[in-house]
Amino acid sequence: MGNRAAVLHAPYDMRMEERPVPQPGPGDVLVEIKAVGVCGSDVHYYEHGRIGSHIVRAPLILGHESAGVIVDVGEGVSRSRVGERVAIEAGVPCRVCEQCRTGHYNLCPRMRFFGTPPIDGAFINYVTIPADFAYVLPASMSFDEGALIEPISVGLWACRKAGVGAGDHVLITGAGPVGLLTMKVALALGATFITITDVVPQRLERARQLGAMQMLNVTEMPLTSMKLNADVLIECSGNASALRDGILSLRPAGVAVFVGMSPSEEVSVPMSFIQDKEITLTGTFRYANTYAAAIALVATKHIDSAALVTGHYALNEAEKALQATKSDPTNIKSVVVPEAQ
Amino acid sequence: MGNRAAVLHAPYDMRMEERPVPQPGPGDVLVEIKAVGVCGSDVHYYEHGRIGSHIVRAPLILGHESAGVIVDVGEGVSRSRVGERVAIEAGVPCRVCEQCRTGHYNLCPRMRFFGTPPIDGAFINYVTIPADFAYVLPASMSFDEGALIEPISVGLWACRKAGVGAGDHVLITGAGPVGLLTMKVALALGATFITITDVVPQRLERARQLGAMQMLNVTEMPLTSMKLNADVLIECSGNASALRDGILSLRPAGVAVFVGMSPSEEVSVPMSFIQDKEITLTGTFRYANTYAAAIALVATKHIDSAALVTGHYALNEAEKALQATKSDPTNIKSVVVPEAQ
Amino acid sequence: MGNRAAVLHAPYDMRMEERPVPQPGPGDVLVEIKAVGVCGSDVHYYEHGRIGSHIVRAPLILGHESAGVIVDVGEGVSRSRVGERVAIEAGVPCRVCEQCRTGHYNLCPRMRFFGTPPIDGAFINYVTIPADFAYVLPASMSFDEGALIEPISVGLWACRKAGVGAGDHVLITGAGPVGLLTMKVALALGATFITITDVVPQRLERARQLGAMQMLNVTEMPLTSMKLNADVLIECSGNASALRDGILSLRPAGVAVFVGMSPSEEVSVPMSFIQDKEITLTGTFRYANTYAAAIALVATKHIDSAALVTGHYALNEAEKALQATKSDPTNIKSVVVPEAQ
Amino acid sequence: MGNRAAVLHAPYDMRMEERPVPQPGPGDVLVEIKAVGVCGSDVHYYEHGRIGSHIVRAPLILGHESAGVIVDVGEGVSRSRVGERVAIEAGVPCRVCEQCRTGHYNLCPRMRFFGTPPIDGAFINYVTIPADFAYVLPASMSFDEGALIEPISVGLWACRKAGVGAGDHVLITGAGPVGLLTMKVALALGATFITITDVVPQRLERARQLGAMQMLNVTEMPLTSMKLNADVLIECSGNASALRDGILSLRPAGVAVFVGMSPSEEVSVPMSFIQDKEITLTGTFRYANTYAAAIALVATKHIDSAALVTGHYALNEAEKALQATKSDPTNIKSVVVPEAQ
Repeated sequence: MGNRAAVLHAPYDMRMEERPVPQPGPGDVLVEIKAVGVCGSDVHYYEHGRIGSHIVRAPLILGHESAGVIVDVGEGVSRSRVGERVAIEAGVPCRVCEQCRTGHYNLCPRMRFFGTPPIDGAFINYVTIPADFAYVLPASMSFDEGALIEPISVGLWACRKAGVGAGDHVLITGAGPVGLLTMKVALALGATFITITDVVPQRLERARQLGAMQMLNVTEMPLTSMKLNADVLIECSGNASALRDGILSLRPAGVAVFVGMSPSEEVSVPMSFIQDKEITLTGTFRYANTYAAAIALVATKHIDSAALVTGHYALNEAEKALQATKSDPTNIKSVVVPEAQ
Repeated sequence: MGNRAAVLHAPYDMRMEERPVPQPGPGDVLVEIKAVGVCGSDVHYYEHGRIGSHIVRAPLILGHESAGVIVDVGEGVSRSRVGERVAIEAGVPCRVCEQCRTGHYNLCPRMRFFGTPPIDGAFINYVTIPADFAYVLPASMSFDEGALIEPISVGLWACRKAGVGAGDHVLITGAGPVGLLTMKVALALGATFITITDVVPQRLERARQLGAMQMLNVTEMPLTSMKLNADVLIECSGNASALRDGILSLRPAGVAVFVGMSPSEEVSVPMSFIQDKEITLTGTFRYANTYAAAIALVATKHIDSAALVTGHYALNEAEKALQATKSDPTNIKSVVVPEAQ
Repeated sequence: MGNRAAVLHAPYDMRMEERPVPQPGPGDVLVEIKAVGVCGSDVHYYEHGRIGSHIVRAPLILGHESAGVIVDVGEGVSRSRVGERVAIEAGVPCRVCEQCRTGHYNLCPRMRFFGTPPIDGAFINYVTIPADFAYVLPASMSFDEGALIEPISVGLWACRKAGVGAGDHVLITGAGPVGLLTMKVALALGATFITITDVVPQRLERARQLGAMQMLNVTEMPLTSMKLNADVLIECSGNASALRDGILSLRPAGVAVFVGMSPSEEVSVPMSFIQDKEITLTGTFRYANTYAAAIALVATKHIDSAALVTGHYALNEAEKALQATKSDPTNIKSVVVPEAQ
Repeated sequence: MGNRAAVLHAPYDMRMEERPVPQPGPGDVLVEIKAVGVCGSDVHYYEHGRIGSHIVRAPLILGHESAGVIVDVGEGVSRSRVGERVAIEAGVPCRVCEQCRTGHYNLCPRMRFFGTPPIDGAFINYVTIPADFAYVLPASMSFDEGALIEPISVGLWACRKAGVGAGDHVLITGAGPVGLLTMKVALALGATFITITDVVPQRLERARQLGAMQMLNVTEMPLTSMKLNADVLIECSGNASALRDGILSLRPAGVAVFVGMSPSEEVSVPMSFIQDKEITLTGTFRYANTYAAAIALVATKHIDSAALVTGHYALNEAEKALQATKSDPTNIKSVVVPEAQ
């Protein structure tokens, strides 16, 4: 069996290559990839060859939102797992450091994360992963839905950090894929009012269709003019003004979570307001212990994520998938579908 | 305007009487009652004249699940509130003691709670209540739904205490009104699997219709034989075996919340299991700060409570409503509808 | 009996005046003031006539760190309280709003706080206060110690917000009275390592004497060069660089609490770091439900606060006390001692 | 080098035997044991050959409170660790299961814990342990203090579970080693009042010397007669009455933690009280992520544990150490001191 991969050599230089099929080590499973979602960070690497201090110095396989089928197992893993349809949690921690031992393994300094230099990702036919990071999918769930467990995890982690609860008014700034999936999660956790902002009318209209109650195009009216008094802000745009105005839209003791990619090392925040209202501000870095819950939410229709898939691409069209995600603001989520020969 | 009341004089002795219409004091509103749900505790007082140390020593008006219309306000309350359709939070705390000041006013030792001796309740045309305990209902919500905010609050408080979250498997023992509404709340908070137990087949069938995934008649099979490994137990039957077997059905670090009325002062619990698995066990006493969220959950259809109303009664039929709740296991929630003359 | 007060008319214009002795209303007590600590905010009002949007528009009595003796009670308060030596919690909330009902009454929008325009403070012989905001002092505690319960509360609240716990390395930026008392509280809560920063050598030396393990003069070496990996930052200087460098000194999942007075509406924070390390940042606004615990900590010698009192002043020397606090960096806490005639 | 061990063959049958020195595997260190505390569970195995379902079916080496010196390292561990004086965390989890990944690895079902059948313990000269479970001791700490980090961890975990905080009144039932060390930890975390109960006067006197404020001999007066209104109960006696009366001594919203060994599978608890006061009850099973904090507390003199060591024994006197712990109620902590040849 062959193992074809879409490999990024330099910005805008992606090549199809053949790689050896990896052997699953002790505790690992070998997964044949069936679907890989395209994330904004994949596009950023494709265009810029780096994200902050993470630099693509050697050819890199992108892709970290993936699902597939277990085709082999390593030592210590039950052979009964062969044939399982699984979602792949893309980051493998060391399991030994303080962060791992206290349950926030996403902060493990030795984390190996798919598609982040120098670790290869899932735009390929076969990958290995520790058995406990391959989560069985119920028969009712598609591979697309399995791949989207990753961005749903981002939203679920943000909602957990924010303590989203029953009856909350959640403000989401940014109606891209992360903002929309975070909205879906917030509604599934009992949030009863969603205000969402963006600068692209079509995105706001899509948000409305997907469940937002109040949409604001911030090119037309400043967010602060709405005096929202929201319980929670989840910033998903990476825009400094959105963060500032979002914080100013919170009620006393409200919580702000920054999920978007920070526009710069430092960002100005409304500190007097944070202090007078005792706002809590935090940021999220990926997620931990979210996959099982995210799968259950999708399997039970608490979250409908299939509606967010706006295009499918073959593995040798991965570059096209990246470009589509970049160029079209109404595109929500492209999925690459490798087909093993 | 008259103020008719259904007054309990002794077990099985309920009489219609005329009372003066109360004057709203400073900070209070006067509410014309439009709907009152019948609770198991009302029935218990009606039958036994007491619940534990709470003894009906003087004629008492029952009823604490109520909604109505504000018809007058006391000093310091905006007259614009007249005409508001409201749900009434039925217990008024002292606002000064340590419990009140730390946010769990439900534990205030000076709490005055509707329909609990010696405080009169809502089987009457007019009551007064502090303005902040009368919560405006959206136009889309009926008075029935307003009255049911009280038992939904019981379920919401239990779910908060249990920390019910996304993807949780929640075990609910007891499929009466509290169990069913708690189930509805748990689903609205992201629980993805509900196991519910009871001894009455019709109740279990109703639970299935309302969203339970797994039903168990514990007269047919012991709960522990299922080896559930649930995340959360919410005990709503007041049965000691249900509590014990429910606890034994939890995963390590699981949480058990006792909502049912304790069958006796002391109850035996599986302490070795609690310790080896670090189970957390607590009980709930009413609720605090739940009304706004509960109303929002119903208003946004996260919870459909109208389906639980199984009968309406006039005020002079209050006794009949109590008896109906008692005698028919398929009866979920009777509502008394006072009509001011 | 007379009621002399030190009244601020304008910046640098403080006058002794006679005021009527107030009558304690229902639920209130009348307290004869015996000691009032001078706070940096008092000095700020004295110099600038305002703090941010709080402007002294009419003559104002400053002082909010106070202790005294109950000399009379209002309706509903037991006369047995007369003669009690008490610490006064200086801010009285409405007890009715959402913030009050959920236990963070410090965020009550209708808070009336001593010495904050237009509410008079404690540089006077007699004040009234709700009975539950006058906390009995054990015989072993002095009025000075009673007055200092207020700034200890600031530190205790900050430590609670930060979740300071056993074995924590706490970084405190700013070795003024708030920084030093916060350090004392942190040590009493089980923090085992304190790093403290300032720009005044004498303050750092005092911090060392009071228990700090590591002192840094940030004019000599940048904080970030130490690579502290602290668990908690409590910013007590109001300096933007201290906040930024303090945050950068935290371990993954560390917590930063901003207690100092914000230097401007907006402050720049290291957002990439906050996000990559999932730092939590919050600010504190006074405190809630801290007095009883703070008194217990001092009464049991967990905290020795008497050592921080560096000067006593008569009521007609209040202005001198304010100036002393301002001009001498080694001055920690001045106490004004009103003597009723 | 030899590796002598004290091996339990059957109740009251302990034999000195020679074992091979183990090879440290990948990630492990080899530790020469210098001090081992004797725990009540060691005594229980010695006397009964079992604790509940844990049965000594093959010769077993007891001892899990240990400290020593690293003398060799396995693959992947820096040789610079050789020579380190360390405390040994005695239970090694799988690091892969849900419990491990969420930070409560003490509940790992595949935990291998020293001196618990069939895993050998530390009454021996040499053991291996994963490098991250060997915690460096500061030079100021003795091996005795290193060994006692284990029972301090039990107390620290209990205090964390109870949320012991500033100003708390902590009730500890049982003044044995665990009760006394838990008291020490509670005081170090800011508890300001300790009530401790026992049935042995000498133990209560010792508790007083070590910092308890209120001692009660429950053979003389029932605990409930004191109407304590404590914030926290930590039950350290394994006595069902102590648990019941302790719970009844809590304030509303108080927390009870059961640390003692459960006297039977099931225990009766005051459920009406638990419910009316919303008491939280939990049990502890060992500890997780406590060692670094516990060492820091001892190193900084927040906790003085040396005072609890009441006797030293050579390795071939291990049996005598077990008997001493059993027979003398004033004996707090015996320490076995293996001397490698």
